[in-house]
Amino acid sequence: VLLALPDVPLPAEPALTRAKVALAARLGDSKVDTSREGCERFMNDESEATGRLPAAVVHAASAEDVRACLAIAHDLGVPVTPRAAGTGRSGGAVPVAGGVVLATSALADVKELNRDDLLAVVGPGVVTGDLHAACEAEGLFYPPDPNSWKSCMIGGNVAENAGGPRAFKYGVTREYVLGVEACLMGGEVLRPGRRTVKGVTGYDVTALLVGSEGTLAVFTEVTLRLVRKPPAVFTLLALFDDAAAAARCVSALVRDGHVPRCLELMDRETLVALRASGAPVDPRAGALLLCEVDGHPAAAEEAFERAGEALSSAPGVLEVQVAQDAASRDRLWAARRALSGATRKLAKYKLSEDVVVPRSRLEELLVATRALGDRHGVRNLTYGHAGDGNMHVNFLWDTPEERPAVARAIEDLMRATVALGGTLSGEHGVGVAKAPYLALEQSSGLIRLQRDLKAVFDPRGLLNPGKIFPAPPHRAC
Amino acid sequence: VLLALPDVPLPAEPALTRAKVALAARLGDSKVDTSREGCERFMNDESEATGRLPAAVVHAASAEDVRACLAIAHDLGVPVTPRAAGTGRSGGAVPVAGGVVLATSALADVKELNRDDLLAVVGPGVVTGDLHAACEAEGLFYPPDPNSWKSCMIGGNVAENAGGPRAFKYGVTREYVLGVEACLMGGEVLRPGRRTVKGVTGYDVTALLVGSEGTLAVFTEVTLRLVRKPPAVFTLLALFDDAAAAARCVSALVRDGHVPRCLELMDRETLVALRASGAPVDPRAGALLLCEVDGHPAAAEEAFERAGEALSSAPGVLEVQVAQDAASRDRLWAARRALSGATRKLAKYKLSEDVVVPRSRLEELLVATRALGDRHGVRNLTYGHAGDGNMHVNFLWDTPEERPAVARAIEDLMRATVALGGTLSGEHGVGVAKAPYLALEQSSGLIRLQRDLKAVFDPRGLLNPGKIFPAPPHRAC
Repeated sequence: VLLALPDVPLPAEPALTRAKVALAARLGDSKVDTSREGCERFMNDESEATGRLPAAVVHAASAEDVRACLAIAHDLGVPVTPRAAGTGRSGGAVPVAGGVVLATSALADVKELNRDDLLAVVGPGVVTGDLHAACEAEGLFYPPDPNSWKSCMIGGNVAENAGGPRAFKYGVTREYVLGVEACLMGGEVLRPGRRTVKGVTGYDVTALLVGSEGTLAVFTEVTLRLVRKPPAVFTLLALFDDAAAAARCVSALVRDGHVPRCLELMDRETLVALRASGAPVDPRAGALLLCEVDGHPAAAEEAFERAGEALSSAPGVLEVQVAQDAASRDRLWAARRALSGATRKLAKYKLSEDVVVPRSRLEELLVATRALGDRHGVRNLTYGHAGDGNMHVNFLWDTPEERPAVARAIEDLMRATVALGGTLSGEHGVGVAKAPYLALEQSSGLIRLQRDLKAVFDPRGLLNPGKIFPAPPHRAC
Repeated sequence: VLLALPDVPLPAEPALTRAKVALAARLGDSKVDTSREGCERFMNDESEATGRLPAAVVHAASAEDVRACLAIAHDLGVPVTPRAAGTGRSGGAVPVAGGVVLATSALADVKELNRDDLLAVVGPGVVTGDLHAACEAEGLFYPPDPNSWKSCMIGGNVAENAGGPRAFKYGVTREYVLGVEACLMGGEVLRPGRRTVKGVTGYDVTALLVGSEGTLAVFTEVTLRLVRKPPAVFTLLALFDDAAAAARCVSALVRDGHVPRCLELMDRETLVALRASGAPVDPRAGALLLCEVDGHPAAAEEAFERAGEALSSAPGVLEVQVAQDAASRDRLWAARRALSGATRKLAKYKLSEDVVVPRSRLEELLVATRALGDRHGVRNLTYGHAGDGNMHVNFLWDTPEERPAVARAIEDLMRATVALGGTLSGEHGVGVAKAPYLALEQSSGLIRLQRDLKAVFDPRGLLNPGKIFPAPPHRAC
């Protein structure tokens, strides 16, 4: 076990047996997998955490299946862990209490793509990249682009409030969710939100559900705001002496009013990893910035030229490369897209944090990260969404004996981030992985309030227990 | 009484007496106004509603004053109505249960204006227009611009999730609130949110507080995201035959990917009102569109030229006027800014709704509004943020006998809006004025859930009771 699971109440065996019978009777055997192999496949996501073996995996084929599952499980006191693609990095989709895994990946319809109202209505199982493609075929654009866009799904993106490189200009998933259809533990269906861009009737329940990590409700439909596809895109790649110089350039670009859609930084160790995996990265470079601008042709070209001038004259810059067509853009992005795989090859174990600091503190974060890696003797490499101050700090190790040092390095990173005025997670969520650190950032009063909000949606603590904060005790049935 | 107050529990006289004594002892007499004149001045806001006479108005001079007031009132079971500028249009700041009015207008410090991190930290009493000026002096920009920007305050803007013309490009207040310091009924201080643009630790409590109309907590500090001041602005004014032609032009602009910062429409009756107040509006015009683009000079100029071509060739257009400098821009805007005053002169009573429909349904909304006005014999004029589908429908009448017909017209407008896929309020909030219509848009389950969320923050229902939904009973002390 790489990551200890929280101590959550486990369902009683008789309740699990009754749940399996009731679910199969209601949904049909084909949607309720109780086989050991079938259940084992749903114990993990893309985090370090391994859950407890669920008693059943429900493969919902409709919103009604979701409703029925949540009603039956609630009645029998059985915990439910919702899941879309399972690509999350904080353990949000890991069944820490066993129970039932509720997979919504088959709710994969793009029900509406509306060019006049600039919105899409989709099921939670729509793959983000498929939505990108469907939108762009219509001249529309869905900006959030988590690195796993080829496999992650909208339901998970909304549950985790996913980001991605384009967030620098376009914001994160939260900015695109107009409304949801969501099912509460117990089976009640709610439709907070709307189809309009503005709207202030009542509390923003939609915003409360976005990023709630599957602990408040299960999405069965999402209404997303779209924008027009930007007709022109230009990509620049700048090589720097070192990460500090690149970070200072990022801060200067932000300060001077540049709004590229992406502003990505890779540090020296990241470039080492890239070269090791065969990417042709200039050996002189100690850091790299990827800068992409978009918009209407003349506007984007002007922004591109301004960005090019700023990059070319930045202290510590070695070279600026330009991509004006899709093929050369893909070449520049290939290195960024390959990073997660490339770093995996460097060591047996990898853990990716996603801390955020105010933009002006980026250089300090990079310095602090380097220092704490040295202090604890833990290899690390850092890359990510520098324009937003959101960096992926990857810790690498090869033997279980090194894990305690990694834990100390992570805690130091969290403390350094909070000391810089930052936050523990910009994209991945708290889940299981960051729950031990939540109190470093948030007061006990704020955490208690959030537990009380959770209890409004899920009084018995049966929906995705053990996530964000330790689950309150639930009554066994 | 123009608008009946909801039936909320009233505090007992002895509790009020004890509260006045305790508040004066704690805060000093100068901050606790119990005079009849002093209290009467706080019975209204810019809505039709008149509250019950409060027993005291607390003029908080610090976050600690707010905390002390909320602790004392809670202990004694006395309701509190928070208030910043009192410019709201739905009765949010009206003390429907009497009790104590808690004014935060003196917490008016701009504590930080950070050019590197693009953020401001302000007190709730900062006037929105003063923040605009402070930002723009530093080359920064705070986009939300409710029409009352010269007098409204950030605390109220956040409580109501205020919008304004520039929301079409820049979004509403919600998009700019990174974090708040907020005090709960009882005196607990929470600091949800952060100083970074990204962040997903825990639930989005900040988003839940934005637009909660002072029913969940009282803001004592707000951290706002800023953007760079756009260096170039161009304004266009297009005259149309009628509102339907103007509405079709708006839908076409949105469909064709134009993103002006403002896209405002005024209908025929609005232009009549403007002419009556002396504004030089071309007598041929039956509707008017105000379109403003901004950005970097070359980009904004390109957008301006594209918008000008689209407006000039729109069916039903009569003339397009252009403003390229600040003075001529101010002239074009003068009519828009004068509207609220101009319409007030037309009749003894005026009530402004702010419904929103999906952008493609704008023409249908205008047609429906005209029809229901005729059906009920109620004069009305419509103008507003057409690019967002958010229209201010103003009903006008002169005698109390006409009020029932106005009420029927409003209910028809709400029903028509919901039938078009819209929402009751885009900017003003529910408050007292729209509470009777909430169930037209939201299910009983969603309303119950929101009541339960309210109870987490304020179990005794003492903070701003009678707003959004009828207040749950609170125990008298």
